[in-house]
Amino acid sequence: MITVTTSPATAPARRDAEATKAAILRAARHLLARHAHADITLKAVADRAGVSPPLILKYFGNKDTLFSQVMSFEADAAALLDAPLENLGRHMVRHVLLSQTRHGADPLLRIVFAPLHGEQGDILRANFRAQVGDRLAARLSGPDAGLRAELAVSALLGLGVMFGIARGTHLRAADLDDIADRWAPAVQAQLTP
Amino acid sequence: MITVTTSPATAPARRDAEATKAAILRAARHLLARHAHADITLKAVADRAGVSPPLILKYFGNKDTLFSQVMSFEADAAALLDAPLENLGRHMVRHVLLSQTRHGADPLLRIVFAPLHGEQGDILRANFRAQVGDRLAARLSGPDAGLRAELAVSALLGLGVMFGIARGTHLRAADLDDIADRWAPAVQAQLTP
Repeated sequence: MITVTTSPATAPARRDAEATKAAILRAARHLLARHAHADITLKAVADRAGVSPPLILKYFGNKDTLFSQVMSFEADAAALLDAPLENLGRHMVRHVLLSQTRHGADPLLRIVFAPLHGEQGDILRANFRAQVGDRLAARLSGPDAGLRAELAVSALLGLGVMFGIARGTHLRAADLDDIADRWAPAVQAQLTP
Repeated sequence: MITVTTSPATAPARRDAEATKAAILRAARHLLARHAHADITLKAVADRAGVSPPLILKYFGNKDTLFSQVMSFEADAAALLDAPLENLGRHMVRHVLLSQTRHGADPLLRIVFAPLHGEQGDILRANFRAQVGDRLAARLSGPDAGLRAELAVSALLGLGVMFGIARGTHLRAADLDDIADRWAPAVQAQLTP
């Protein structure tokens, strides 16, 4: 049973706010992939998102909090790691493949576009290691949990690069569960060896 | 026994020629990572490499043959795949890690920087699939060789991204043979299941 908890008047407004926030984050992400953090003005983000600068301030407070959301992997990691440990390898492989087929990208792949030099790349890398690698490692038992977590994440990163960037024809033609059957064991072997 | 086949006068000349060719390829690669193929002039490559445009023509013939070398994975794949099949997984993992530790990059990782749109990215992707994926698949027996080859390459791509771009601290601190012990089985399982 679906319970309607919002009035007809507030539901579209809330949906509009979410869509506007998403457009602002997309615009900031687009500009960050092309310019140094310090060179990007709120006005440039606003222009690209088709909103006014004060609206960005209303939703995100200031430029720093906006960019901290753009450079965070927190929400992505929560979805990626949302499964019991004994089934986590398969869940993560499916999550990457579903994200690729539905959205043409996957949440981990953003690290690939991190600039190799400069502060912005360093922040992205530090966030990625803490919010994805360390968070996974904290769930693992036994020795070398940090290294095993990084290898498990490597398997997911490689799958995303081969699917979304190299566009491997066999991978893109294969059934999602067939790929998971073949690839999840490599991930799971690092989680529960 | 080493047989000296060049005169003292020609050996340095040959070495200079190789260094100059390498500088030209580096310059072309740098510009290709930042501009569309059609917008890059021979003069821009020459300026960046510190040579004259006619010297580029002398070494590479024309702009198209120069860029076809920049966008090729042939030489990289030859070194990557240079081992017997029963030991290839370990050889490839070690090759990626040695390239990363010695040169700060590995040969497969170039595909990660392929532009997602436009002709140049399409050429890089097609080369990568043919020169790395298909070439590996041709050596595999049994069903689904193409898919298995792409998964094996995924494991190597992910390792390179985690080491060279995300800069995983545990991976970078680990012993190369320890990593190979842990990761080669995931690759080899795709090659000889």
